[in-house]
Amino acid sequence: MSHQEADRGFFLVFEGGEGGGKSTQSRLVADWLEAEGRTVTRTRQPGGTDVGARLREILLDPATGSLDPRAEALVYAADKAEHVATLLAPALKRGEVVVCDRYVDSTLAYQGAGRAVDPGELAQLSAWATRGLRPDLTVVLDVDPLVGLGRAGDHDRIESEPLDFHQRVRGRFLALAAERPEAYLVVDADRDPQAVHAEVREAVAARIEAHR
Amino acid sequence: MSHQEADRGFFLVFEGGEGGGKSTQSRLVADWLEAEGRTVTRTRQPGGTDVGARLREILLDPATGSLDPRAEALVYAADKAEHVATLLAPALKRGEVVVCDRYVDSTLAYQGAGRAVDPGELAQLSAWATRGLRPDLTVVLDVDPLVGLGRAGDHDRIESEPLDFHQRVRGRFLALAAERPEAYLVVDADRDPQAVHAEVREAVAARIEAHR
Repeated sequence: MSHQEADRGFFLVFEGGEGGGKSTQSRLVADWLEAEGRTVTRTRQPGGTDVGARLREILLDPATGSLDPRAEALVYAADKAEHVATLLAPALKRGEVVVCDRYVDSTLAYQGAGRAVDPGELAQLSAWATRGLRPDLTVVLDVDPLVGLGRAGDHDRIESEPLDFHQRVRGRFLALAAERPEAYLVVDADRDPQAVHAEVREAVAARIEAHR
Repeated sequence: MSHQEADRGFFLVFEGGEGGGKSTQSRLVADWLEAEGRTVTRTRQPGGTDVGARLREILLDPATGSLDPRAEALVYAADKAEHVATLLAPALKRGEVVVCDRYVDSTLAYQGAGRAVDPGELAQLSAWATRGLRPDLTVVLDVDPLVGLGRAGDHDRIESEPLDFHQRVRGRFLALAAERPEAYLVVDADRDPQAVHAEVREAVAARIEAHR
């Protein structure tokens, strides 16, 4: 299933490390889009479905302890498969705007660069899980991990990884954006949220216009 | 990692539909092997690790409801990855006998034949999750689903599938055994457990001998 063939909706994803303001920015952009008269589905990965919420608990609970890297990647992939099949693809097919916190790039960054699982294998696994559904626009909220981690409250299982893990994650997000600049917006997220939102809004408006 | 290169243990798997007596037979064979002086790790899929137990709950709880077939396959694969990496491969490396209720063939039968997920894709996914670890001997405890399901108590989420689902599952187990007869023993499980055990024991003794 190709997203571009299957529907007329618009798929917007926020990516980036911890503390970059993904939930704030996705809320701001969703509110703006709704004020513009669009129907918006705002969701996140992992945890956007009932079973996904149970998988998210396993993934982020510090009590889970260390997981085999492939097992961890597979739990994330399971969350994605359920999310795409039951929520994202139907919403896009109805012509809605989907705004999602994290998607495949988080797998490529955290499990690929963070855990060192083979990137090609991860990409293949993610494509299978999501049936090839790709975002129309990915906004990377870029922030230095030293700053971002300081903003997060109690650290979950992933946030508790050492600083160099988060630095590799950041580097991978930026590398993915550099590979396909036409599908990405990289924003300096260490600024006032309204300034970040203005930049996001401008890019989203242009892409949605071009997408129609 | 190839099992055959990585270790000198013996990997025995029990497969087959519901009510074929997998847990009884794996207990009987483990007791016998221990009495013969071998170190045995007896385990099962899903649920042989801490995180696997939580994944098993999701998979078998009727309250989970229907899952996207790929999501279901990915949760099973995650259980396998954790199980192989943290329990099976280390035990085999130590030279132990591993006796496991269900393994990759259950995925191929339940998700492949039952749910109609592409068999080649499932095989590839399972091989990635298990890092290519294959059983030295798979015992298929074959029983008519009409008989087997009658033996099971309260039906879990999978057991609650309709009869033709379970008939496709049975057919796939038998087809897998027919493809590689040298690695399989198919036993008529609709008999006295001790008679089944005697047949299993004879096959296991011969294969372990040949394996050394």
